[in-house]
Amino acid sequence: MAKEYDVIIIGGGPAGLSAGIYASRARLHSLLIEKGMFGGLIANAELVENYPGFPEGISGFDIGERMSQQAIRFGLETLSAEVTGVDLLKDIKTITTTEGVFSARAVIIASGAERRRLGVPGEGAFVNRGVSYCATCDGALFRDRVVAVVGGGDSAVEEALFLTRFASKVIIIHRRNQLRASKLAQGRALSHEKIVPIWDTVVGEIKGDKNISHLIVHNIKSGATSQIAVDGVFIYVGQIPNTGFLKGQIPLDHEGYIITNDRMETQIKGVYAAGDIRKNSSRQVITAAGDGATAAISAERFLSS
Amino acid sequence: MAKEYDVIIIGGGPAGLSAGIYASRARLHSLLIEKGMFGGLIANAELVENYPGFPEGISGFDIGERMSQQAIRFGLETLSAEVTGVDLLKDIKTITTTEGVFSARAVIIASGAERRRLGVPGEGAFVNRGVSYCATCDGALFRDRVVAVVGGGDSAVEEALFLTRFASKVIIIHRRNQLRASKLAQGRALSHEKIVPIWDTVVGEIKGDKNISHLIVHNIKSGATSQIAVDGVFIYVGQIPNTGFLKGQIPLDHEGYIITNDRMETQIKGVYAAGDIRKNSSRQVITAAGDGATAAISAERFLSS
Repeated sequence: MAKEYDVIIIGGGPAGLSAGIYASRARLHSLLIEKGMFGGLIANAELVENYPGFPEGISGFDIGERMSQQAIRFGLETLSAEVTGVDLLKDIKTITTTEGVFSARAVIIASGAERRRLGVPGEGAFVNRGVSYCATCDGALFRDRVVAVVGGGDSAVEEALFLTRFASKVIIIHRRNQLRASKLAQGRALSHEKIVPIWDTVVGEIKGDKNISHLIVHNIKSGATSQIAVDGVFIYVGQIPNTGFLKGQIPLDHEGYIITNDRMETQIKGVYAAGDIRKNSSRQVITAAGDGATAAISAERFLSS
Repeated sequence: MAKEYDVIIIGGGPAGLSAGIYASRARLHSLLIEKGMFGGLIANAELVENYPGFPEGISGFDIGERMSQQAIRFGLETLSAEVTGVDLLKDIKTITTTEGVFSARAVIIASGAERRRLGVPGEGAFVNRGVSYCATCDGALFRDRVVAVVGGGDSAVEEALFLTRFASKVIIIHRRNQLRASKLAQGRALSHEKIVPIWDTVVGEIKGDKNISHLIVHNIKSGATSQIAVDGVFIYVGQIPNTGFLKGQIPLDHEGYIITNDRMETQIKGVYAAGDIRKNSSRQVITAAGDGATAAISAERFLSS
């Protein structure tokens, strides 16, 4: 027999932990399942400056710790396991994990999204030291510096435009000879005085000492290798929503994100989504935490009905 | 000439302050207008236990202080004034206040909602000492206690059901002889073993010593006056969205709340809404702050386009 809960929360980032705080404080018997460490994507961020309430900033690790303490204090149970399958379509939903099978009448999916990595030498080593996957988060650290953006889609171009608010120069490095972003965004970016595109080019290596100092790039048409001096590189080559375990259970958009309304309800009764896994998420700690609270409030109302 | 900004934020509660953090950190020239003190409705809350990141809780005053410090650190300008009129329909929007006229290309409305008060003796004096307007916020403080809910609408009944998770007994005091809530909610409430309705009755006074101990109530049919011993009273006699200054400028729902999508966009280009002023808001600090961040991100994208 599966152990039964009122609510099962999948994912222990800010969305899941906030849902856990609200659900357990509402005395719902709640289980949060996380395969790695609490805090999600931001767990490794050295300094989060924009989570409201911490004027001096706070590390991503500390945010995760503080939120998990708070949730556990209210009675949230947590399990370190990977979700391998779900059955969400019945009234009693079943969650299968590497550590057993659990059931609940309500499920909150907060499993997040991974940033796609370039997979080149130096990328992992220079995270927090010049390599970033979020201009909204880290752009302000690059005032009057030279930064590169890798990618050519809407996100890459939007974030390049955002970075012009801080950086002295924004170099867009793209493997093709034109951007994939909308014509409007392309026009704005390519006519911006601070933005310089470098076409037909891929990054081969990220180099530096304490912080990054330059990129080794290859022109895929000419075969030429060269160096570009930069203080930062923002990598926008896609995100991978962690929805693999949901196959066929819940409608996803064409990129794999879960569609919700503003109460975080999905199209399946008793199933909610919160945070980066959600289509139109703002991908910030504060917005994910807000989503999580709303999802838990919606779940509580559903369970009372 | 009106002084011009990129973004004007109306309201200095968690939604407005979070929008201010995000807008000013994105180097938008931003003005926040607040008529009272920072923090909004929760400024007077002694202990907020459910804002994620503060495992021991934090006072409402401190949340407001910390968020405003953070926003000002990033360059947010603030103005202590009341908004008396707006013109949002042109590309350059105009905000008229008791301290002058200001303009901006984007406006974030975060002016909140007031809880309607009963207006009886003791109500103001016992706030934080037994009188509450939010079961989600304060219900957990009344484990195994007797509480009253005043009101008969959907909110009153939903919150009464929520309170059954904590309280030993929930007395619904309503001036009519039946609830206004949906039939479904009524049925659930009236069949709940912990819920007792008292019909045709109004609260005349809230009494106690350090904390509240009882209510003086009047039966409006019989004219009889009696006492009811309670540890807490939750007042749900309506909310008043602060949208008076918006007359005719922006579509509102039938209760006066602003309709947005999940990017916090209203139906007017360049105008965003966040927090309690928004239809379907969860009315929590964390959800308001999430809304504010999303509104500022949407405004930034609009201004870059």
